[in-house]
Amino acid sequence: MESLDMLRFIAERRDGKQHSREGLALFARAVANREVEDYQTSAWLMAAFLNPLADDETTWLTQAMADSGRKLDRHRLPKPWVDKHSTGGVGDKTTIVLLPVLAACGLTMLKMSGRGLGITGGTVDKLESIPGFRSTPRFSSLVSQALRCGVALSAQSSVLAPADKALYTLRDVTGTVGSIPLIVSSILSKKLAANAEIVVLDVKCGSGAFMKDPVQAERLSESLVKVGEQLGLVVKVRVSDMNAPLGRAVGNALEVKEAIDTLSGEEGALTEHCVSLASETLVACGLARDQNAGEAAARAVLQNGAAFMKAYGWFQAQGATEAFLASGLKALPTSSNVVCLEAPQAAGRVLGIDAGQIGLLVADMGGGRRRADDVIDPEVGVWIRRQVGESANGILIELHLRPGEPREAEFRDRALGAFQFSTR
Amino acid sequence: MESLDMLRFIAERRDGKQHSREGLALFARAVANREVEDYQTSAWLMAAFLNPLADDETTWLTQAMADSGRKLDRHRLPKPWVDKHSTGGVGDKTTIVLLPVLAACGLTMLKMSGRGLGITGGTVDKLESIPGFRSTPRFSSLVSQALRCGVALSAQSSVLAPADKALYTLRDVTGTVGSIPLIVSSILSKKLAANAEIVVLDVKCGSGAFMKDPVQAERLSESLVKVGEQLGLVVKVRVSDMNAPLGRAVGNALEVKEAIDTLSGEEGALTEHCVSLASETLVACGLARDQNAGEAAARAVLQNGAAFMKAYGWFQAQGATEAFLASGLKALPTSSNVVCLEAPQAAGRVLGIDAGQIGLLVADMGGGRRRADDVIDPEVGVWIRRQVGESANGILIELHLRPGEPREAEFRDRALGAFQFSTR
Repeated sequence: MESLDMLRFIAERRDGKQHSREGLALFARAVANREVEDYQTSAWLMAAFLNPLADDETTWLTQAMADSGRKLDRHRLPKPWVDKHSTGGVGDKTTIVLLPVLAACGLTMLKMSGRGLGITGGTVDKLESIPGFRSTPRFSSLVSQALRCGVALSAQSSVLAPADKALYTLRDVTGTVGSIPLIVSSILSKKLAANAEIVVLDVKCGSGAFMKDPVQAERLSESLVKVGEQLGLVVKVRVSDMNAPLGRAVGNALEVKEAIDTLSGEEGALTEHCVSLASETLVACGLARDQNAGEAAARAVLQNGAAFMKAYGWFQAQGATEAFLASGLKALPTSSNVVCLEAPQAAGRVLGIDAGQIGLLVADMGGGRRRADDVIDPEVGVWIRRQVGESANGILIELHLRPGEPREAEFRDRALGAFQFSTR
Repeated sequence: MESLDMLRFIAERRDGKQHSREGLALFARAVANREVEDYQTSAWLMAAFLNPLADDETTWLTQAMADSGRKLDRHRLPKPWVDKHSTGGVGDKTTIVLLPVLAACGLTMLKMSGRGLGITGGTVDKLESIPGFRSTPRFSSLVSQALRCGVALSAQSSVLAPADKALYTLRDVTGTVGSIPLIVSSILSKKLAANAEIVVLDVKCGSGAFMKDPVQAERLSESLVKVGEQLGLVVKVRVSDMNAPLGRAVGNALEVKEAIDTLSGEEGALTEHCVSLASETLVACGLARDQNAGEAAARAVLQNGAAFMKAYGWFQAQGATEAFLASGLKALPTSSNVVCLEAPQAAGRVLGIDAGQIGLLVADMGGGRRRADDVIDPEVGVWIRRQVGESANGILIELHLRPGEPREAEFRDRALGAFQFSTR
């Protein structure tokens, strides 16, 4: 086996030449084994951002990344082996709702999730705001838990697709997140390594997503389907709006609260999104005959408490404290410094809430990660009291700040600045 | 003073937007103070390679890099404050000849030099093959030595233009050496920090240089002059061929040997190049009325031993051992594994010797650096016995290998493969 000449590999990408299948395999293995310096990998990442990989290179890289570590052995789990993924948006807590809903509908959901990337949060960061929640259970126990509870979730660890983990961490801190081939290989390599057969993907599009415009989202969707096909996966893609944050909460504990409210049967924007995506999954898996039937099934388990109980069992299995469970999944970390902001006079209705600005705001407030080793404050975030289309009277938004936050005035301005109003 | 938002700074470059003067100043300071992670700097470097800095950005970065550390205080040295620089080529040992020649002609030469970059060697690496040679004398002693001996040379240290040192090291290992604005800012920031007023630049062009074609070399030259002017420097640029190695030796100790041979009055391709460049410098400094007069002066000090004695004094001042001095500057490290290669039958004359291939060969043999922490073997290298235009009979080239080199067969093939022949 030849070894990787990283300088030549970087130069290939820099000069827009084609990587060989073997070169990509050597690269993925070297990254996984930490045999490449981060500064070389990030130079390659930027070159790959500016000279994007072609579809066949993306396929080869994806396979190589999937092969860079262990595979998840699902043979004890009932089929269909299904997985979902969101490309990440501001306030996107879909997974926390969707997994229990699908489990309540009869699927066995075993999922690997990522941490926060840039302005968008990560499901694992969110779940870790649950007291006691263990996001890295032992690999061997994941399958047992999924069998027992219907749901198991783990942080992307160094065991599955370790090359992706290394690249994902570096992309986050080098401005190379938004490259379509890198997104495709990151998403699909994890799904391959987790031995999924059917993958439902929620591609976010708008100011709060990596994909800012529909053309880009469309290209990403096409590439996901095409590369997925070449890798033997059934890939279903849904493109959804991310110009305004999804739901009311942005920030880790607040998003978990909103997800739990939804699982408790409270109706809101989040409900519609989750019900629709759940239905798409049920149809793809042959558990619902069409979109309407799937939606009805999903809505039923939200209303009758079945989804909530699946969530309860899931959190319990992954270490949630007795106190949290006994509180009815309510005792989440809260900020002691909540500031309520009212709309400026004469603002009639909320026309828009810029998801990108809100995401950046929450990250700067301490709820997100600018560098790989930044620490997140789970209780920090915002709660949107007036959503797009609603009347702007009264309190628009709550800021949940760190105690004694010195930048409060700036954050107030930025929060209000994210809103657009109409006077009538 | 604002602090640097590195992610935004990377994104600016990635997206081809203009950096502000202040942004570049913050970046240079942060790099100098090691406040940026290498993986972020290298992502920026690749973005800057693919979306090159404009001239004004280059000027700002150069000034910021020069300001990132101390300045060399030349006020005790006689004017003109002159400096020279080569963009680096294969077998380029010009500095080792030129400094003593110019000192013998009456100039006081104080120079900072770099280490090896990719396939081209660095003057400091070469000089360090002299037994005892100290390439990092105390900053305060450099000026005294220059006053006393006419020549002083130091490795680019973290004291002068520390931002450049950090960037230079990373560019070397991330495939981002060959960017014109980065080259310009690297060269000129060091000259600015060293308080030079007149700068003579030898821009190499060909397969063994960063600049492969004359158009690129021309662009680099223009940018050096333009940015230099904006910074108040007088910049003289000469473009010289680097399709074949300069002179006969490639590899550290071997190149020093060739330089010392030249200083001893032996005539060769190296002599012409050094005499011509010395003359250009003497003219720029007003010490020779035209190119012919300058060349005559340079040739005279090579023939009469004055240049050799300046070199002797220089090496002595910088720590060369008694044994080395007593040997007449001959007792350099030598390989115990020298392989002599003959031309294939029917080869008439040497038509070409690919400098790029020879440079890569010597680097792979252990005479150059692929990664920042690679260790160089000083005795490793090649000695070209038949240069371009010479008859190909007999021994073409000597390979000076590591003892028991396992890749000898490969290196033999590659060395011969670098030669082109004509049959008549």
